Amino acid sequence: MTRIRLLIEYDGAPFAGWQRQPDQPSVQGALEEAAGKIAGEPVIIQGAGRTDAGVHATGQVAHFDLAREIEEQTIADALNFHLRPAPVAVLEAKYTGDDFHARFDAVRRHYRYVIINRRADLTLERGRVWRVPSRLDTDAMNQAAQSLIGRHDFTTFRDQLCQAKEPVRTLDTLDIARYGERIEITCSARSFLHKQVRSMVGSLVDVGRGHRPVGWVAQALAARDRKACGPVAPPDGLFLERVDYDTAPNRNP
Amino acid sequence: MTRIRLLIEYDGAPFAGWQRQPDQPSVQGALEEAAGKIAGEPVIIQGAGRTDAGVHATGQVAHFDLAREIEEQTIADALNFHLRPAPVAVLEAKYTGDDFHARFDAVRRHYRYVIINRRADLTLERGRVWRVPSRLDTDAMNQAAQSLIGRHDFTTFRDQLCQAKEPVRTLDTLDIARYGERIEITCSARSFLHKQVRSMVGSLVDVGRGHRPVGWVAQALAARDRKACGPVAPPDGLFLERVDYDTAPNRNP
Repeated sequence: MTRIRLLIEYDGAPFAGWQRQPDQPSVQGALEEAAGKIAGEPVIIQGAGRTDAGVHATGQVAHFDLAREIEEQTIADALNFHLRPAPVAVLEAKYTGDDFHARFDAVRRHYRYVIINRRADLTLERGRVWRVPSRLDTDAMNQAAQSLIGRHDFTTFRDQLCQAKEPVRTLDTLDIARYGERIEITCSARSFLHKQVRSMVGSLVDVGRGHRPVGWVAQALAARDRKACGPVAPPDGLFLERVDYDTAPNRNP
Repeated sequence: MTRIRLLIEYDGAPFAGWQRQPDQPSVQGALEEAAGKIAGEPVIIQGAGRTDAGVHATGQVAHFDLAREIEEQTIADALNFHLRPAPVAVLEAKYTGDDFHARFDAVRRHYRYVIINRRADLTLERGRVWRVPSRLDTDAMNQAAQSLIGRHDFTTFRDQLCQAKEPVRTLDTLDIARYGERIEITCSARSFLHKQVRSMVGSLVDVGRGHRPVGWVAQALAARDRKACGPVAPPDGLFLERVDYDTAPNRNP
């Protein structure tokens, strides 16, 4: 058996999420079907981040096992061939140690959330960003974001269906930057709770709109109560951008 | 009569091009239909650049006349409302002088062509970039591009259906920049011939691939023969990005 590590990009729009589901299209399912055609037998693919329905990835990492050795570029090409026309692409396939686990070995996950802050409808970026018509105060959002950085009980910012055993996570970075009408929110942590990024982004946007004072985010966090969360941001603007490992690195494009 | 100047963004994929056509969807047609609903009578909209089928715009400029005065933001909002669900958005509507002409007054047009230089299929940018799998030498492309800058007879680089009276144009800038797997080609001129940008890009890519030597582009230009042109780049990667005017920005009514 040889273990393959994949670097994957996808448009999340047509999928019910990363995770395999019995009756709905999933990214994991599409990849497992493509890999099964190469392996000639059923294949299980493990991903680093179980992205939700509609959430995209530019740097998802996953692994699976093959019984016979095939050249790395041939694996990537064959997976891409069998994945068509699904909007999922294998950017890289690399042999890795047999003990490598895409999910459990990940030491940091990086997400990017993209907002277009304008009144006019979306055209070219439809489904790939969240359009917020009212002018957002990104200074206020950045101030409010400070209270979320560090080790906290994120009960307020996790979905009620979240299956993680405990709600404490360490948020390493949370930055908000404006480039004209484009606002990019980047964050990183060893792991995130279910819908944590979208819950944080939605709450910060409530501050940016002026619906809530800057200090409200800290209060919402301290409440440790899902009902204290602001509206959850839509999946369209969210991208799993990179996953870090201590083991030999996969290059990002 | 009051004249309105529009700043327009669109995804060119579902359209047969900018120009109104009897039996096919066009950007001009979609805008004229929307404007007609506001005006209560048929409206003619003049655009600065007659982009081809599949070509996008992030900064197209157009003008039309309204018999009654309506607040600028209301015009933009109403046009966007009536344009839905077409991927065309009015970013700005401004009153302008009655002699302003979006096409004839334009002093410079700026286009951007985006290439993704990688082997893996496209996902998130499908239809919005040209994927070129073989590694492109952007230094060679930049060298070859130098011969196109300036005033030349661009017969080689214009479509045989081009209706311009004469083939001489002055190309002000033509730059090729690489950002990882992304290659962006930007160019500007007072005006371009039909398919000129895509003809130049396709020929430069032939050089970047190593199919042709750097000096071949100058020879192709000097030939003044359409048959000397390289393959025409697909419309997917082309964006009309900005149109410049000498006229004062916009007066308020």
